[in-house]
Amino acid sequence: HLGPTGTYTETATLAYRKWLAQEKKQEALLCPYPTIAQTFKAVATEEVDLAVVPVENSIHGSVTITLDSLWELPKLQIQQGLILPISHTLLSQSKTLEDIAIVYSHYQALGQCQRWLENFIPQAQLITTNSTTEALEYLSKEPTAAAISSERASKLYKIPILASNINDYPDNCTRFLILGLNKATVGTHISLAFTVPANIPGSLLKPLQAFAKREINLSRIESRPTKRSLGEYLFFIDLESNSREKITQDALAELSTYTKELKIFGNYKILTIKSEDLLDL
Amino acid sequence: HLGPTGTYTETATLAYRKWLAQEKKQEALLCPYPTIAQTFKAVATEEVDLAVVPVENSIHGSVTITLDSLWELPKLQIQQGLILPISHTLLSQSKTLEDIAIVYSHYQALGQCQRWLENFIPQAQLITTNSTTEALEYLSKEPTAAAISSERASKLYKIPILASNINDYPDNCTRFLILGLNKATVGTHISLAFTVPANIPGSLLKPLQAFAKREINLSRIESRPTKRSLGEYLFFIDLESNSREKITQDALAELSTYTKELKIFGNYKILTIKSEDLLDL
Repeated sequence: HLGPTGTYTETATLAYRKWLAQEKKQEALLCPYPTIAQTFKAVATEEVDLAVVPVENSIHGSVTITLDSLWELPKLQIQQGLILPISHTLLSQSKTLEDIAIVYSHYQALGQCQRWLENFIPQAQLITTNSTTEALEYLSKEPTAAAISSERASKLYKIPILASNINDYPDNCTRFLILGLNKATVGTHISLAFTVPANIPGSLLKPLQAFAKREINLSRIESRPTKRSLGEYLFFIDLESNSREKITQDALAELSTYTKELKIFGNYKILTIKSEDLLDL
Repeated sequence: HLGPTGTYTETATLAYRKWLAQEKKQEALLCPYPTIAQTFKAVATEEVDLAVVPVENSIHGSVTITLDSLWELPKLQIQQGLILPISHTLLSQSKTLEDIAIVYSHYQALGQCQRWLENFIPQAQLITTNSTTEALEYLSKEPTAAAISSERASKLYKIPILASNINDYPDNCTRFLILGLNKATVGTHISLAFTVPANIPGSLLKPLQAFAKREINLSRIESRPTKRSLGEYLFFIDLESNSREKITQDALAELSTYTKELKIFGNYKILTIKSEDLLDL
């Protein structure tokens, strides 16, 4: 998981480990990595068994490095989804918001608190770090610096909270994926991505029709550039379906006749974590 | 436009100004702003007549602040699109890549050179700035720092180039939008965004069918969170069409019966700039 200790991804990993212990009687050690890209690499090279990565936040949207890495490393399969409630706090050695000159955090956390920052500390320069806890490294040296992180990180690093619940919308949550090399074929959701032949009207329409005519719901559609040329896209789709059902198999078979490249990232369940579940992690 | 002087957005603005002078016999003064959000604000409050903002890069994808701001400020209309080739250089006072400890740049530029950075300066810490030229401020004080910016910025700020053409894919380009308060109704492209009733299978399909059955091509589809709740999205669509044609009017009328909220951002032409056009700006 993304580290150092105290990140939201670590919290998601702890919640998943608790679920593993309760439901599967399995134990797991946690291993932090400095970037999401390195977390992907660690599981792809079998340095670790599973990786926990954020894929989407309800305010700021997709974690593009995760989507791009899934496409590049299709042998990684989604074992499980996990939704975590996220409440951001502003940590600082400073006593007042007026004194804050710099705010450090992960770009997703800065993006989720954009309006709050503009309203309450418009003077602050915003600096992006690899994780919300990497941001805390700067606070001891710089008394006018603040970091956006979690209440849990405040306790772990013993840094005072200057403001709580600072995300721009109250129902903030992040969806994580647990990735491994096992083929995942059981669950309520299927994630896949594909490219379509370019510049044909309706070339995205036929893939979508393959699901709609079978009343399979799409819970998400996202496009990413192929990176080769402007206007060429990959489409990432999440289906509410399971691959043991015949209609799903038929829809996927039909889909494959319309796509240029098609990669299926797994069929998995989603675990929804509540705020109260986080108290004893 | 996003400043300080030397940004790619400034180059796009200079290219647009040249086009305005040649085609429309209009003169224009340039006015830099420190962030894309402030550029939007400046044109929405009529501090300036037009804003030039990046919307999409061929390697790193959408500029989400631009999509979110378009949705929030729908009175702004797209007057013109502009595609600019982008070739990144690494600027530094240092003589060798081995000495570089930190690389500063805009998150889009860091994203477009991700692999190059991993391959050639894996030791470097990456720090995000508001613009590629804001990154240059750090170079005089920090001899082991580098910044990703343009060849033009190297000349303007007299900082040596340590490596050229460092973007991960050669055909890198960024699409910009020129925004103003005039209603834009002439051109080859229409941009719009909408929300659909949630959780109905095929709720995105019907909007797409409205265009496909009339053979109107979609050059882009992108989703963004509504920010209210995970799984609720806005869809941004670019059509290759023009609003004076009856089939387009019919498609848009049909579309409006399927959507919850529908915002049309303008009907405009796209100007494609070539590398050789940039020499005399």
